[in-house]
This record gives sequence, C-alpha cells and structure tokens, in this order.
Amino acid sequence: MISIAIIGYGNIGRAVEQAVLAADDMKLAGIYHHGDINEQMVNEQMVNAVDVAVLCTPTREVPRYAEFFLRHGISTVDSFDIHNQVWPLRQQLMPLAQEHNAVSVISAGWDPGSDSMVRALLQAAAPQGITYTNFGPGRSMGHTVAAKAIPGVHDALSMTIPLGTGIHRRMVYVELEPGADFHTVERALLADDYFAHDETHVIPVPSVAALNNVAHGVNLVRNGVSGTTHNQRFEFNMAINNPALTGQILTACARATQRLRPGAYTMIEIPPIALLEGDEENLIRQLV
Amino acid sequence: MISIAIIGYGNIGRAVEQAVLAADDMKLAGIYHHGDINEQMVNEQMVNAVDVAVLCTPTREVPRYAEFFLRHGISTVDSFDIHNQVWPLRQQLMPLAQEHNAVSVISAGWDPGSDSMVRALLQAAAPQGITYTNFGPGRSMGHTVAAKAIPGVHDALSMTIPLGTGIHRRMVYVELEPGADFHTVERALLADDYFAHDETHVIPVPSVAALNNVAHGVNLVRNGVSGTTHNQRFEFNMAINNPALTGQILTACARATQRLRPGAYTMIEIPPIALLEGDEENLIRQLV
Repeated sequence: MISIAIIGYGNIGRAVEQAVLAADDMKLAGIYHHGDINEQMVNEQMVNAVDVAVLCTPTREVPRYAEFFLRHGISTVDSFDIHNQVWPLRQQLMPLAQEHNAVSVISAGWDPGSDSMVRALLQAAAPQGITYTNFGPGRSMGHTVAAKAIPGVHDALSMTIPLGTGIHRRMVYVELEPGADFHTVERALLADDYFAHDETHVIPVPSVAALNNVAHGVNLVRNGVSGTTHNQRFEFNMAINNPALTGQILTACARATQRLRPGAYTMIEIPPIALLEGDEENLIRQLV
Repeated sequence: MISIAIIGYGNIGRAVEQAVLAADDMKLAGIYHHGDINEQMVNEQMVNAVDVAVLCTPTREVPRYAEFFLRHGISTVDSFDIHNQVWPLRQQLMPLAQEHNAVSVISAGWDPGSDSMVRALLQAAAPQGITYTNFGPGRSMGHTVAAKAIPGVHDALSMTIPLGTGIHRRMVYVELEPGADFHTVERALLADDYFAHDETHVIPVPSVAALNNVAHGVNLVRNGVSGTTHNQRFEFNMAINNPALTGQILTACARATQRLRPGAYTMIEIPPIALLEGDEENLIRQLV
C-alpha cells in the first residue's frame, strides 16, 4: 500500500482524498493544512509513515513545500501551473530528489499534465504541424482573481470560452459592491492586462455564487504531417469536473513516484502505465 | 544520428523511409527485403552500422526477425498487431534484448500503439468507467483478406464503419470472377466467421481498385469516474492516412530505443518525451 499525505485541504485536497480512498493500492496517512507543516511534525509523524506528499497548496507555495518534503526523503506530487516556470522548478528539484532517493512529479494536473502528454503524443504522430489547445467552457482562476481585484467588484467569475485556434472569449460575471457604477467597473476591467488582449464581455449579476460550477474542458486539435503526408488530423476533447480530474491525476502521479527512479519529472517524462493501478501484465493485456 | 535499417518495403516500409528522411536526428542505413536477411549479411553490413531495425514485415514474421536482430545487438521496432499475443511477444523478447544490450519496442503503430497510450492515460484520469474504441471509416486488412478468400471473389475491400460503443458495420465491396454468382458469394461471405457477428453489407462493384484509399481513423471515447465524481467525459479522434501514421510512429519508437534501458517495451511503457526529436529542455518548455 502506498501511504499518502495530503498537504492543503481546499477543492483539490478534497478531490485527492476521494481519489486515494477509491484506490485499492493506497492508504491515507493524513491530511494537513500546509500552514501547520514544520520540521518537528514531519520528523515525528511523517518521515517513517508517508511515501508521498501530495501538495494541494496554492501554486506559488509549491516549490518550498516540494523542497521541504524531498529533503526528508518523502516523494512529492504537485499541480504547479505557471507554464514558463515548470522547467526551472524541475531543475531546482532534480538534485534534491536524487540526493534523498525520492521522486517529485511536478505540474501534474490536466494542463499542464494530461494535456501535455497528449500534445507530446500528437507531435510524435505528426512532427510537423500546429497544435491548438482550446480551453473551456470553464472558470479561469487567474482571470477570476483579476476581476475580483477591480474596485467596486464584490465577487466575480471569469469564464473561458473556446473560439478555436487557441483564441478565447472571456465572459466575466460581476456582482457589484453597493453603490458601485457598472460602467466604471466595466471600463477598468476591460483595461486590465488580463482582459485587454481577448474578446471580453462584462455582465452584471445579482449573485455570482448562483453561477458557480466547477465544470471545465479542453478541445486540443492538431493537423500535421506524418513523414511526407499532410492533413493528418487529431482531436482530443474533455468535459470534466475540474478539481475531481486534477485530484485524480495527482493521485495517479503519486502512484508513479513509486515506480520511477529518483529524480524530478514532468508528466511527459512518465510512461502512462506507471500511472495505473494493477499489475503490468493485466494492464498490457487490457490496454495495448 | 540514429542509424535506421528498414526491413520489408511495402506500404509501411515506404512510410518509414519518408519519416526517417524527414527526421533531422536520423539517417537511413539501408532498406532490405526481409527475405534477403541472413546471418552473413547482418554480420557484414549491419552489426556495426545499424542502431535500429524497423520491422515492416507481415505481422506473423515479426517475432522471428525481432529475435534475429536482438541476438545481434540491434534494437528493433515493429507494429505487431495480434492483440492477444502482444504480452507473450514482450516476454519472449525481454531476456534477449537485455542480454544483448538492445531495446525492442513492440506493437508500435496506432492501434495497438498511440491509441493504447491514450487508453492508458484516460484510465488514469478516470479509473472507473468504460472506454469504447471505434475504428474507421477505413479498410480492415483482416476482413479484406477474408473476403478475397471467398470462392468467386476476384478482388475485395472490407471497410470498417464505426457505429459507436465499439460496434462496427462491415461494408464489403467485391469484384467477382467471370461467371461467379453474386448471391452465392454473398451467402458464403456472410457465413464466414469474420463477418457472421457484425452487420455486414456485400456490394458488387466493377473495380475494387477504383475504391482504394488508405484513409482510416478512430473515435475513442471514455466516460468515467475521477475519485467519486461521475460523468467525466473524454474523446480522442483521428482521421489519418494509415500507412503514413504507422510509419511515423514506428520511426518515433525507433528514436525511443536509443533513450530506454535494454528490454522489450509496449508503447504504454514509454514516456511520451522519448518519442520526440529535440532536447529535453525545449520539449518540456514547448509541450508541458
């Protein structure tokens, strides 16, 4: 049994808990608020009892918690999602993981994560060509936070709507502070760098909570060339509950840590079979 | 540069040739008709000059050629496609590859192959649920051969038409021998074990050659459960030139042989990044 500690207990931590409980090869060693983690507690409660720490902290907290657990020889998994910092994080964690005989799987969610694996596979299938990743419909966390920061906004929800070829519309639902002027809010929001480059619609609503929905999706398209043959067409679609999928993929990658050599990995560096419960022979017979 | 020998020069061998010539990290060491391969020739021409033999022989010839090249320390790739014999072939080649410090990637095409990787990934994303692999529209080699074997048939083409949930229609175009009776042929074909279990339509045509088209495709669908969350929906579609894609994937797997430890692998045991041309850092920056 792989012993799992969940670090951080928001939407994603709860989803990891459900995925771990649903897996027959895992047991839950504990759930910790990341603010409570300290040296003494890790030495007393975790070093001998935990195989993998699944980091469900805010993404910017991931690097220091990953370092901390790896230094104690505990493998880690995270869904670090700042695309241009993935490679630097991998390089930062690689020597630590190797030194302490642990594995760190970074950026393990659906994008970055499972979508990255699909993009890699499609590039192998048609090395020349263009891949478009179209997100949504679903809530964009970054854009929602940016909208909430506009003066006069009490609550907000920014939905990402795919328009194809990697172009997205932003549908921003705003619940105003009492006395705030909608057109002032709208102007400020449209001028914000998060929204200024995309087609953006701002819509006043009486309650943002009434619109809440963790659905999300992707439409990933590649048209490319295999050998010298053009017009090879590939498409990958998902319509999913976002935290449930992220939690499930983190859990699958927690399993993979037990099957990889020490080091830091992104998901495109992991054989798909390493993500799966069950023995090699049955999996190959079933899936190949 | 990875030095490639192509063994067998039919549709697939030609497609591998194009993919190898299009790759900047590969060179073509030679193209051989598999019937010409012998001990002396391999020792004189190949042992010191070839890194990977790409086996483009009929599928039933794959095991003996794979064994032969592995014994000479030459890595192999094949698209062996008899699903229930994939695991036994892997077990047969594993010790040979390890003993001779070589790598064998087996069943490397699109199904088995890249579809297998997608199936594995989707099972990781939603471990409980059903995956349906719907093939086509495209020519089924096995069914075409079975149709050609019916007395009175001069030439035939069996198209696989996807009806969803893994159920397929067979559209069988037959060009009759002079004097053959269509209804006799139709009855014999419908009674053949290849066709007796599916919806099958037999259509007489003046020329099968006039219908020839190497297009094929897949619609692979999974609806499953991530953690405890049901109705997670995934779909993978392709519409492709069949030999071109098979040749490209064989070529990508030939590259992977140079990045894996000695042994025999199916594609679900290979990290996607190992299939790709270029350095690790750029690939991770681009694709993750």
